[in-house]
Amino acid sequence: MKLTRKVRDILTNYESDNPGTKANLARILMHGRLGGTGKLIILPVDQGFEHGPARSFAPNPPAYDPHYMFEIAMEAGLNAYAAPLGMIEAGADTFAGQLPTILKVNSSNSLSRVKDQAVTGSVKDALRLGCSAIGFTIYPGSDHAFDMIEEFRELTAEAKASGLAAVLWSYPRGDHLSKEGEQAVDISAYAAHIAALAGAHIIKVKPPTSFLELPEAKKVYEQEKIPIGTLTERIRNVVQACFNGRRIVVFSGGASKGEGGIFEEARAIRDGGGNGSIIGRNSFQRPREDALKMLDTLIKIYQGKE
Amino acid sequence: MKLTRKVRDILTNYESDNPGTKANLARILMHGRLGGTGKLIILPVDQGFEHGPARSFAPNPPAYDPHYMFEIAMEAGLNAYAAPLGMIEAGADTFAGQLPTILKVNSSNSLSRVKDQAVTGSVKDALRLGCSAIGFTIYPGSDHAFDMIEEFRELTAEAKASGLAAVLWSYPRGDHLSKEGEQAVDISAYAAHIAALAGAHIIKVKPPTSFLELPEAKKVYEQEKIPIGTLTERIRNVVQACFNGRRIVVFSGGASKGEGGIFEEARAIRDGGGNGSIIGRNSFQRPREDALKMLDTLIKIYQGKE
Amino acid sequence: MKLTRKVRDILTNYESDNPGTKANLARILMHGRLGGTGKLIILPVDQGFEHGPARSFAPNPPAYDPHYMFEIAMEAGLNAYAAPLGMIEAGADTFAGQLPTILKVNSSNSLSRVKDQAVTGSVKDALRLGCSAIGFTIYPGSDHAFDMIEEFRELTAEAKASGLAAVLWSYPRGDHLSKEGEQAVDISAYAAHIAALAGAHIIKVKPPTSFLELPEAKKVYEQEKIPIGTLTERIRNVVQACFNGRRIVVFSGGASKGEGGIFEEARAIRDGGGNGSIIGRNSFQRPREDALKMLDTLIKIYQGKE
Amino acid sequence: MKLTRKVRDILTNYESDNPGTKANLARILMHGRLGGTGKLIILPVDQGFEHGPARSFAPNPPAYDPHYMFEIAMEAGLNAYAAPLGMIEAGADTFAGQLPTILKVNSSNSLSRVKDQAVTGSVKDALRLGCSAIGFTIYPGSDHAFDMIEEFRELTAEAKASGLAAVLWSYPRGDHLSKEGEQAVDISAYAAHIAALAGAHIIKVKPPTSFLELPEAKKVYEQEKIPIGTLTERIRNVVQACFNGRRIVVFSGGASKGEGGIFEEARAIRDGGGNGSIIGRNSFQRPREDALKMLDTLIKIYQGKE
Amino acid sequence: MKLTRKVRDILTNYESDNPGTKANLARILMHGRLGGTGKLIILPVDQGFEHGPARSFAPNPPAYDPHYMFEIAMEAGLNAYAAPLGMIEAGADTFAGQLPTILKVNSSNSLSRVKDQAVTGSVKDALRLGCSAIGFTIYPGSDHAFDMIEEFRELTAEAKASGLAAVLWSYPRGDHLSKEGEQAVDISAYAAHIAALAGAHIIKVKPPTSFLELPEAKKVYEQEKIPIGTLTERIRNVVQACFNGRRIVVFSGGASKGEGGIFEEARAIRDGGGNGSIIGRNSFQRPREDALKMLDTLIKIYQGKE
Repeated sequence: MKLTRKVRDILTNYESDNPGTKANLARILMHGRLGGTGKLIILPVDQGFEHGPARSFAPNPPAYDPHYMFEIAMEAGLNAYAAPLGMIEAGADTFAGQLPTILKVNSSNSLSRVKDQAVTGSVKDALRLGCSAIGFTIYPGSDHAFDMIEEFRELTAEAKASGLAAVLWSYPRGDHLSKEGEQAVDISAYAAHIAALAGAHIIKVKPPTSFLELPEAKKVYEQEKIPIGTLTERIRNVVQACFNGRRIVVFSGGASKGEGGIFEEARAIRDGGGNGSIIGRNSFQRPREDALKMLDTLIKIYQGKE
Repeated sequence: MKLTRKVRDILTNYESDNPGTKANLARILMHGRLGGTGKLIILPVDQGFEHGPARSFAPNPPAYDPHYMFEIAMEAGLNAYAAPLGMIEAGADTFAGQLPTILKVNSSNSLSRVKDQAVTGSVKDALRLGCSAIGFTIYPGSDHAFDMIEEFRELTAEAKASGLAAVLWSYPRGDHLSKEGEQAVDISAYAAHIAALAGAHIIKVKPPTSFLELPEAKKVYEQEKIPIGTLTERIRNVVQACFNGRRIVVFSGGASKGEGGIFEEARAIRDGGGNGSIIGRNSFQRPREDALKMLDTLIKIYQGKE
Repeated sequence: MKLTRKVRDILTNYESDNPGTKANLARILMHGRLGGTGKLIILPVDQGFEHGPARSFAPNPPAYDPHYMFEIAMEAGLNAYAAPLGMIEAGADTFAGQLPTILKVNSSNSLSRVKDQAVTGSVKDALRLGCSAIGFTIYPGSDHAFDMIEEFRELTAEAKASGLAAVLWSYPRGDHLSKEGEQAVDISAYAAHIAALAGAHIIKVKPPTSFLELPEAKKVYEQEKIPIGTLTERIRNVVQACFNGRRIVVFSGGASKGEGGIFEEARAIRDGGGNGSIIGRNSFQRPREDALKMLDTLIKIYQGKE
Repeated sequence: MKLTRKVRDILTNYESDNPGTKANLARILMHGRLGGTGKLIILPVDQGFEHGPARSFAPNPPAYDPHYMFEIAMEAGLNAYAAPLGMIEAGADTFAGQLPTILKVNSSNSLSRVKDQAVTGSVKDALRLGCSAIGFTIYPGSDHAFDMIEEFRELTAEAKASGLAAVLWSYPRGDHLSKEGEQAVDISAYAAHIAALAGAHIIKVKPPTSFLELPEAKKVYEQEKIPIGTLTERIRNVVQACFNGRRIVVFSGGASKGEGGIFEEARAIRDGGGNGSIIGRNSFQRPREDALKMLDTLIKIYQGKE
Repeated sequence: MKLTRKVRDILTNYESDNPGTKANLARILMHGRLGGTGKLIILPVDQGFEHGPARSFAPNPPAYDPHYMFEIAMEAGLNAYAAPLGMIEAGADTFAGQLPTILKVNSSNSLSRVKDQAVTGSVKDALRLGCSAIGFTIYPGSDHAFDMIEEFRELTAEAKASGLAAVLWSYPRGDHLSKEGEQAVDISAYAAHIAALAGAHIIKVKPPTSFLELPEAKKVYEQEKIPIGTLTERIRNVVQACFNGRRIVVFSGGASKGEGGIFEEARAIRDGGGNGSIIGRNSFQRPREDALKMLDTLIKIYQGKE
């Protein structure tokens, strides 16, 4: 599997990483229909933890079966599949060697009000289950943010030494942030930058709105006339915050929505220089055929065909 | 001991586990009068920890003696016996090799108000005492839920590497949950799903009521017309939440009650696709003969004979 | 599975062992058609290591497949199956929970002239593969004997702490022993006693001849008029050496031979108070049907029926 | 990358391995032009260690550059490349994610007369360099054989726990073996069987001659009329020794020779049920174009086209 | 590279440190245009963590790229560059061996209100990235101060044992300190002294004002007539607190400001016996040419030329 020039260029940015980690990044970047383009779509399934099974899977009951997730990610030609321990364990043998997987090693649940997550997996688990990366969530702004960052540091150091990659979900959340502020462009860019500084290989944030949360940041955005009017411009601003594009950044799909909205968002991510989408609910909550059709269009958008 | 097709099918679902863990799951599933049926009844005795000795054993004083528990579980032909360190230590030698045991490695007590449990046993204890599994309780919804899940993660990783199985009691509890909500069907299914995601082999929850606690979940249950009118339907909903039946799920008997209620519940568990009962107080708080008669009927129900 | 009085009595002799180890001894003693009798037949397959594949399996080619060994041990109703790492790994999942297994953790091979063995497995392997015991060979008399005994000590200490049993093949061998002396009754009893002293739970020696190797021993045998004229008497002498019957002792079948010889030997073992046979080549080098018929008779002998 | 039925069947034989190890086996089996066929060709470069640089690389000077090895393995479409630490380190970053690699973790050299090898790499090295497997050599028959097997045991246990595969070069060598005997069919089959018993996933031996070394084995080959007249028959005999085909076995090319000999050998390996070739000197000591042409034909032979 | 007498004298003060740590201190002190003078300028980039990307880099967008920082530090001839994990990782390979680097191993962010920092790097990271020192921040006066000091202790002990130097940012902050008091001369000197006592090799504090925060300290300053009227005098007071000049102390530039202010401050640091400046925002938030010109003047000031 010869790497494309594009993927080779991306790997060059991870200059301090060992060949094992680069090989796993390459595995993700070269897999599926977007393999080699430098763009990627990841199927994440932490909805069960976050929102419970009925809210997650009742809209499309076959999704209750963990094998369904592996199958749809493979059939759609996605780059990787990310999920917590139990979900990966339930299919890792059947699908061994067929699809890059990301072990999500911490998770929250909506029965708890604490703005934290529980560590539910380890680097050793990722190795024995054949995963290419670990995934982790931090909540910048939460009272637990520093603890979460420190947990990430320990897990990611072990992952890097073991030749795995680290994906960081950076989701601002906390008492001092307004609800609107959680997706504000200054906050999203800040969250992405924190992830880059913490040493993540792949950064996941939400697509930013044009809202500006922090007064000091607002002043700078206005003074420097940073364009944030369109989503494309805001994506570009986040990409800059990821070491000026030296780190891969993907955007979550958020709440399930109409196909039109998804496609529009993907075009903005693409045009703003983002690397792709991490799209859970919008994939597995649709009937299989609809999901595959939607993902097919999404892939074409990232291929520049739509 | 040739495995039945049924048990073989169940083991296949634990595809990432090593042969040691599968052998111990097989040991539990093949033991007793329900051996080989894929159904199971477990005798759990953590009442002493939870409610103190008098409330637990005074109704049937022979039950003060830990040997009584081993004897009744064996005489009734149950699949396994689960108890905290001291109880297992008090009989493990006498009954070595006669009954699969589950070392309950954390426990609460009603002298404390903290919604947490103390870790009271280890994987090494389970090995030296000849147990087939460790048991653990989490309280989703509690402020300690994340810590408990992290404790489970560490213990279960060691158990899996040592060829043991892991049983997880998932009991929603916390300030943000209404008392009625603790057994609500949406919450029970959520708790069961969290256990599956955390990597448990056998999941234990309470039989759910038709109450719906979380407004967002309520909306989905109504919208998707998920049938929850009968206990059978609700059991089916919980089974779905356990990776669509890929994980064993058993239901607790709860407070002691009339035989009629117990049998009705068991029929619903059986008809809804649940794997069985974990029945403590209703076993050991009855006089021996009554308990054995009750358990005999229960077994017949799971055998499909009553 | 209620233990028989006989098995309970045997377990009582292992009074310093933890319940985990006793449970695994019970598992072996209660399994198969001799389950509960205190007698046992173990299928050992280290011939491939010792003599190479052709000498071991060509006489009965289906035996090249490791699954064949599990199948024949189960079909014949033997108590346990002992083999090196690769053989156990090749079937441990398929036959998980169906047959007690013993991981032979050291092995020799006839390409080497060194009177030693290589350690090829660990207690961790035994746990992950669901084995009930580890097996080990020492060569009392060899220049490597002390090293081998020390290796056994380390492995058996870990096995005991992990609730496993330890089976010790004690095979006198060395430059100072005559070929005839290797099976001399004084030497066999000595080897068995060394195994008992080293802490083995199950001792395996070869059936002794009436030859006496050591002059000092010879003197005592004659002076004390120890009866060693018949195999039954010699077995009794070895059983005495195993803490007067407080340790299980089984005898190897040795080179493949006629059925008559095997049966005669088994009757002597039985009548001399030995616990049974560990019979490899004579099992798997016969065509399946012949082997099953032979083992059936052997079992009946130990049941006292033939 | 959907596995072929053939590869899926092969993986099923590794039933005790975790999904990580299976994924790495799949990676090797699915890579290159033979990907999915169950056949494989591996490029091994331990000649520099074994014979020194001039004897190894002077016939084709570009081969002095470690990158040359990665390039030729990729260009030819081979399944994997195996080499010692320094060689892998010299190219692992440039070719990260492009070719499955096997870290040869022990090596000999012809300056020493000791029939042993030095451990030169670790499992941690393999992980940081992104390798799919570790490779190891044992010399059955050598006075150091037991030590080598014990080193393999420790390394392979760690490799398996880390989700890597283990390739074992089993090369009979020792004072008690005749030179001719080192490739005798009884000895080759024995060496292959030892590798399988020691827990190797992929076994590498030399193509056997019809010579029979050990008198006891000779007797059995003759008595059982084991066909060993043709190389195809002898390969079949070795495949049997690898757990009747449950373990992958590949054959070394040996000293450089004419193309005709190589192709004939490959056809015999294919027809005898062997899994493929591991071909070093015959690859890199030819001029690039000749080597590629030769490897192209070799691949076609394994594809059944020539 | 022969050390100057000046640098040799400075190293003599670190008399308990091992040669490895001294070599790294020497590396910093001998590098760049101030190499050998005993004076030093360090470029620190933790602004991204502290204030977010837009506030930090939008005024000079090329600074979004981590390579920019290495380049400007090298081009200006500074002594060292200090930054968090991700920033160092993004350039450590490209600039390996070209510039002493300091891995800032803890960091705060302004989304959190907690007066603490998260540990984001380790000594192992510093070693693998080729850094000469670790950097750490403590907040004397904060409720978390003791925890931070303890974290520093552990990290610095490991750093010293590994031959690295430790740079400590000592920034008074906390509910009991007035805003004005954070830079009060008594507090600055106190913070510097705490750093020296905690075992830091290089101490970083803010330039002190003439304000006196603590009544008890105020009394002594007045009683002893300690001169604090000019910045030079206050710097001298801080230098005294750093073991009377036995520890290197550098001063931060603080908020970006006019060049005049920067130069005046530097002259006071120089004249008061301080060792130099650690100047971030004032370097990278200016256009490249302006920054280089400013740093050129700064260097000349420390060289005593301006």
